[in-house]
Amino acid sequence: MSLRTSLIGQTMSHMSGVRAIMKDIEDTLASSASNEPPINLSPGNPVILPEVEDMWRRAATKLIGEERFGQVICRYGSTRGYEPFIDAVVNWFNDKHGWNINARNVLITPGSQQLYFLLTNAFCGPAADGSIRHLLMPLVPEYAGYEGTMVAGKHIRSTKPLIEKSNNHRFKYKVDVDQLEVTRDTGAILFSRPCNPTGNVLTDAEVTEVLRRAAEFDVPVIADTAYGPPFPDVVFTDMSLVRSPNMVYCFSLSKAGLPGERIGITIADEGIINVLESFQSYASLHSSRFGQAIAAEAINSGELAHLSRTVIRPYYRAKMGVFEKALERYMPDVPWHLHIAEGALFAWLWFEDLPGTDRAIYDELKKDRVFVVPGSYFFPGIDPDWPHRNQCVRVSLTASEADLEAGAAALAKVVGRMYGV
Amino acid sequence: MSLRTSLIGQTMSHMSGVRAIMKDIEDTLASSASNEPPINLSPGNPVILPEVEDMWRRAATKLIGEERFGQVICRYGSTRGYEPFIDAVVNWFNDKHGWNINARNVLITPGSQQLYFLLTNAFCGPAADGSIRHLLMPLVPEYAGYEGTMVAGKHIRSTKPLIEKSNNHRFKYKVDVDQLEVTRDTGAILFSRPCNPTGNVLTDAEVTEVLRRAAEFDVPVIADTAYGPPFPDVVFTDMSLVRSPNMVYCFSLSKAGLPGERIGITIADEGIINVLESFQSYASLHSSRFGQAIAAEAINSGELAHLSRTVIRPYYRAKMGVFEKALERYMPDVPWHLHIAEGALFAWLWFEDLPGTDRAIYDELKKDRVFVVPGSYFFPGIDPDWPHRNQCVRVSLTASEADLEAGAAALAKVVGRMYGV
Repeated sequence: MSLRTSLIGQTMSHMSGVRAIMKDIEDTLASSASNEPPINLSPGNPVILPEVEDMWRRAATKLIGEERFGQVICRYGSTRGYEPFIDAVVNWFNDKHGWNINARNVLITPGSQQLYFLLTNAFCGPAADGSIRHLLMPLVPEYAGYEGTMVAGKHIRSTKPLIEKSNNHRFKYKVDVDQLEVTRDTGAILFSRPCNPTGNVLTDAEVTEVLRRAAEFDVPVIADTAYGPPFPDVVFTDMSLVRSPNMVYCFSLSKAGLPGERIGITIADEGIINVLESFQSYASLHSSRFGQAIAAEAINSGELAHLSRTVIRPYYRAKMGVFEKALERYMPDVPWHLHIAEGALFAWLWFEDLPGTDRAIYDELKKDRVFVVPGSYFFPGIDPDWPHRNQCVRVSLTASEADLEAGAAALAKVVGRMYGV
Repeated sequence: MSLRTSLIGQTMSHMSGVRAIMKDIEDTLASSASNEPPINLSPGNPVILPEVEDMWRRAATKLIGEERFGQVICRYGSTRGYEPFIDAVVNWFNDKHGWNINARNVLITPGSQQLYFLLTNAFCGPAADGSIRHLLMPLVPEYAGYEGTMVAGKHIRSTKPLIEKSNNHRFKYKVDVDQLEVTRDTGAILFSRPCNPTGNVLTDAEVTEVLRRAAEFDVPVIADTAYGPPFPDVVFTDMSLVRSPNMVYCFSLSKAGLPGERIGITIADEGIINVLESFQSYASLHSSRFGQAIAAEAINSGELAHLSRTVIRPYYRAKMGVFEKALERYMPDVPWHLHIAEGALFAWLWFEDLPGTDRAIYDELKKDRVFVVPGSYFFPGIDPDWPHRNQCVRVSLTASEADLEAGAAALAKVVGRMYGV
């Protein structure tokens, strides 16, 4: 039969750029005849750290031994989330962060992707007044997974970053406040902090300024805190959880070892939560409960936050150190710049005045069975002719130390060739 | 701050009728000062049967003891689903039902609600040719949860049923084939089989006729088999899983004891699955994996299907028997009709020529702390002035035998009063 999809069906059938690259990597790896193991610096899948896995296994064993196990998995739950998990979240933020939230400020979603889907559609796109509200990204590069969520079409505006170069081949992106334009047609503002793909952390001052501009037009500001405090807390710089009535915080357990269980935690003003709760009741009813139940245990005991600071954060920080050293050792004398490591699981490299494109780097490395993610996929809403957009690559710190070293060496060879040095 | 939602946000913030009733019941129960336990015949939450809970606990215990537990919960998965679970589904339907499907025909969703959300939006609503495609329900009463899923507005058409009365206060709904209108503007066809709320099972002939009409216009036909074979198989009549290239089967583990883990299984033509998979990657990435892993175990061992036939089905069949006997005993001499029990977890009553409405029955019963669901919420897309629409109530067989008896007695008293006998 032929497929007679609706406009929404057509929009949502389209595979975004970064998914196409991930599929290309997958297909290349599957089809390759080589026995040499590849060096894959592309994945977003976090490393399974033994201490973390052990914590989840203990929590699961305890739950299964309890009477309430049946109540957890054999019952429908409320759309808002599993009550003991919501309680654990409320208590954590009130006790440890001095917040003053209650259960009406919390919604658990089946992963934070669902939340970005709900939020961008509930606040962006066509509005009753005839306007088309856009999603504003105050700084790109930004996470590619936000790009395809809007069923009414990709209404995204982004602000080009300021680039602050420092010594020793380092740089940092800054919000270009003069160019940041929040208007009546801004539906929502969204950023990841720490940022996937760059490892940048918006400063508290930058966040405060974005919030101030947004408040003028009652625009919700969504902070994707998937890598931030309190779990997994993969942050190597100062970062506060700045608060405001229009701030929507999205926490995730995926980088704290529970990606398979799909748990996103939204904390926001009750009015915003009510909209999302109703939408979610139609979209998926509620999140699965087993993961929520063991997470409640890990939060209440303090173990999740403790392992985040003492195991998860140091692990990625050390990996970053290995990669940085390897770059220093292998990189030829070209204008390469590594984004200052402020958090998250990625290293982000910029090759200034690159004679060629990020895609060419990808293709050349692929010949050696080395895989990175071309940076151009992380610039939604930006003029495709901006040269910087095609001069970056993302490297995942989930690779082994040996692979990070070998990958840096391979990258150095390829870019050396491209620059002709 | 004021909420500046988009059109979609406004649409999805609206609480549908049946959710408002469920909330009314919840609020009444929470606020009541009475110590008398209520008689709640409204819930959709299945009963936790000890044998079923025990099966899930054993499967969970086994999984946690295995090396792969970490791989299950500590890894992101593919959008399509957890591979060993997809394999279990493919093998089951090929081996036991003689189908010829492969992994490309299967998508696992975080509950079947998500699937109805994806399907109705991908195939209904505004289309590229300027038409507005409607969702067609070939027979109502139908499940109220389908009604709010379309983000572009409620484009639903329904066909009034034929009513076939039989002796002893029984009746059955039939598809009115003469009135069934599939057109170029039909985006998708949807029915539950067995049906929530009526317990009706569309006959194989009815399904075949719907499929034939749909095929003319390449319309997908979605069969919500949440109560059907092979699990939980709460079916008391003959029913085949009729196949066709435009048939989309949706199976669920929620009534087989796993509602908390949100597992929906879609089996369809590869083209349809591809659309849904892409949409799901934006909406929620993938389903949680713990539930899928234990379900793979329960399907492969045959235990899930076995307990469905030997424990779950007989349990609800016996409950229906208790309720039927109680009705015979208590009902006054009024034209009451019980839908013939063909499956699912509900009894559906029709009070012909009722002097009053289903809502009045609800309100009167509520005074006695007895709760049923007014039937009028289950007639999406039907002329609100059709008297039959306001003459029915749904009773859940999840209540205890004592409550079913007491509920029947209370109902008899209320309708006796309304008819003035």
